[in-house]
Amino acid sequence: MKYSAAIDLGGTNIGIGIVSEEGELVFKTSVPVEDNKNPEALLTQMAEGTKKCIEDCGIEKENIVFVGVGVPGLIEGPKGPVILAANINWHNVDAVSFLEEKIGLPVYLGNDADCAAIGEYHSGSGKQFKSLIMITLGTGIGGGAVANGKLFPGFNGFGGEYGHIPLVHNGVQCACGRKGCFEVYGSANALKRETREAAEQHPESLIWEMCEGDLDNIGGRTAFDAADQGDETGKAVVEQYIDYLADGISGIINMFRPEVIVLGGGVSNQGASLLDPLNEKVEKLCVASDTITAPKVVKATLGNSAGIIGAGLLGF
Amino acid sequence: MKYSAAIDLGGTNIGIGIVSEEGELVFKTSVPVEDNKNPEALLTQMAEGTKKCIEDCGIEKENIVFVGVGVPGLIEGPKGPVILAANINWHNVDAVSFLEEKIGLPVYLGNDADCAAIGEYHSGSGKQFKSLIMITLGTGIGGGAVANGKLFPGFNGFGGEYGHIPLVHNGVQCACGRKGCFEVYGSANALKRETREAAEQHPESLIWEMCEGDLDNIGGRTAFDAADQGDETGKAVVEQYIDYLADGISGIINMFRPEVIVLGGGVSNQGASLLDPLNEKVEKLCVASDTITAPKVVKATLGNSAGIIGAGLLGF
Repeated sequence: MKYSAAIDLGGTNIGIGIVSEEGELVFKTSVPVEDNKNPEALLTQMAEGTKKCIEDCGIEKENIVFVGVGVPGLIEGPKGPVILAANINWHNVDAVSFLEEKIGLPVYLGNDADCAAIGEYHSGSGKQFKSLIMITLGTGIGGGAVANGKLFPGFNGFGGEYGHIPLVHNGVQCACGRKGCFEVYGSANALKRETREAAEQHPESLIWEMCEGDLDNIGGRTAFDAADQGDETGKAVVEQYIDYLADGISGIINMFRPEVIVLGGGVSNQGASLLDPLNEKVEKLCVASDTITAPKVVKATLGNSAGIIGAGLLGF
Repeated sequence: MKYSAAIDLGGTNIGIGIVSEEGELVFKTSVPVEDNKNPEALLTQMAEGTKKCIEDCGIEKENIVFVGVGVPGLIEGPKGPVILAANINWHNVDAVSFLEEKIGLPVYLGNDADCAAIGEYHSGSGKQFKSLIMITLGTGIGGGAVANGKLFPGFNGFGGEYGHIPLVHNGVQCACGRKGCFEVYGSANALKRETREAAEQHPESLIWEMCEGDLDNIGGRTAFDAADQGDETGKAVVEQYIDYLADGISGIINMFRPEVIVLGGGVSNQGASLLDPLNEKVEKLCVASDTITAPKVVKATLGNSAGIIGAGLLGF
């Protein structure tokens, strides 16, 4: 059996693991980022952490055949350069040459959201499907598509920005420069904002009790928890949020028709209270819904490991 | 040189032509549809029209090697069946078997918008590019994508519904069942509706003169013509329309990143007064616009011939 070393690069933490060619994560460790403003320092930490991981993992060195790296940014291709990764201050960084020299193995890069999609496709919720789009609801909306075993990064690279399609023309300002993107209505951050705004308008809502009178305590679960207890404000926020999600996701389906949509991020842990009404709406909103069955929206199953598993499959 | 017979099937007219393997339309004729409610009658007309076209075109019969058909509907694959083509009352019609038996040549089907995209890719505005998305602004918004010489119909067929992504959440009702689709703000019909509504609110507008006091005379050019003459209402309609187009098109670019967007339909004939401000807006609305150059939006050049040329290339 062949293995890879895999890096899931974040702004505060470097996840490192060993992944088998069958997509199993057999060893996992992590290193806190010391200085996310200094690209060379971060690359050095990545190289040293990877070498230590290879030493410690108990797998024979000659069976570890490459290093895969999931990067939170725009990449020219699997050999780089990383054109832009704002959270770690990378601008046109040739990560591959640096890491290959320090580690002594071939290095392949992937976008982190793309890596998560590859992970779920091979080892998670996408296992029995030929194509999927993974949509991760977090600070923003990340996404990746895999079809017939291959990543679909758009026709020309740089595609797959599923969070940055219109949803509310001239709506809330998005960090990308646009207004009213899917991301500013469908992300976990958007859900928190909508929950806060609804609480401000409804002093009688249970949400106030749940956040102990401090709106900064509102999380992605607060509205769902309030709704579960029968709170009308919570119910309205949840219904509106699912409405936004259904509009965006069905639009993505109308263009790509993957066999399944895999939902990641903390919000997806709401399970049936999110997925049942969401699927009901998505089904109605897909083109020709009375003639062609719409793909189901399901929960991602690998959690944080999806990205590291996907990175570890980049070179197989 | 090999040739194909190609059919561009519409609800009122059957365009038939002979296309060379190099994508040149060398002969063209058309037959008015006698009964668009009767699938077998229409198929018979198609078969007879094609046989007559092959007789009349002056090309040796043995050099015409297949028949390509662009169908305004949902198709299971190049050999059919046609699942749904509402305008011609087709539901699960096995057009290939019928036509192959009557004509005696292999038959390949394609969606009509996909055929137009193939035509522009090989012989029109897409010639020097490796990938394109063609967006046709008509009654609705049709679209097709071609990358590296191959049609991209979505991962699982039935994709490419570029008109049916969200644009205005809970906006104007769309024929597809959704609300606020790109199509109901970006199509030629949408432009006419917005022009009519603006004229109703602005009795002083030149639009009234141009439509001779009858709002039913408003066409896709009316607002552009009024704007050209300095009419404020016309200018506002045009600016708003271009705003909608830019929002939708940049969203599509963010997902697919084709090398070029080709705009078809009558509205695209506005030329620079549409394309210059549109490109300026699209450029700003694409993700990472300060780092990656956005693809240009250009006018389709083949007009009605795009669909027939694309159909004629389905089997080469």
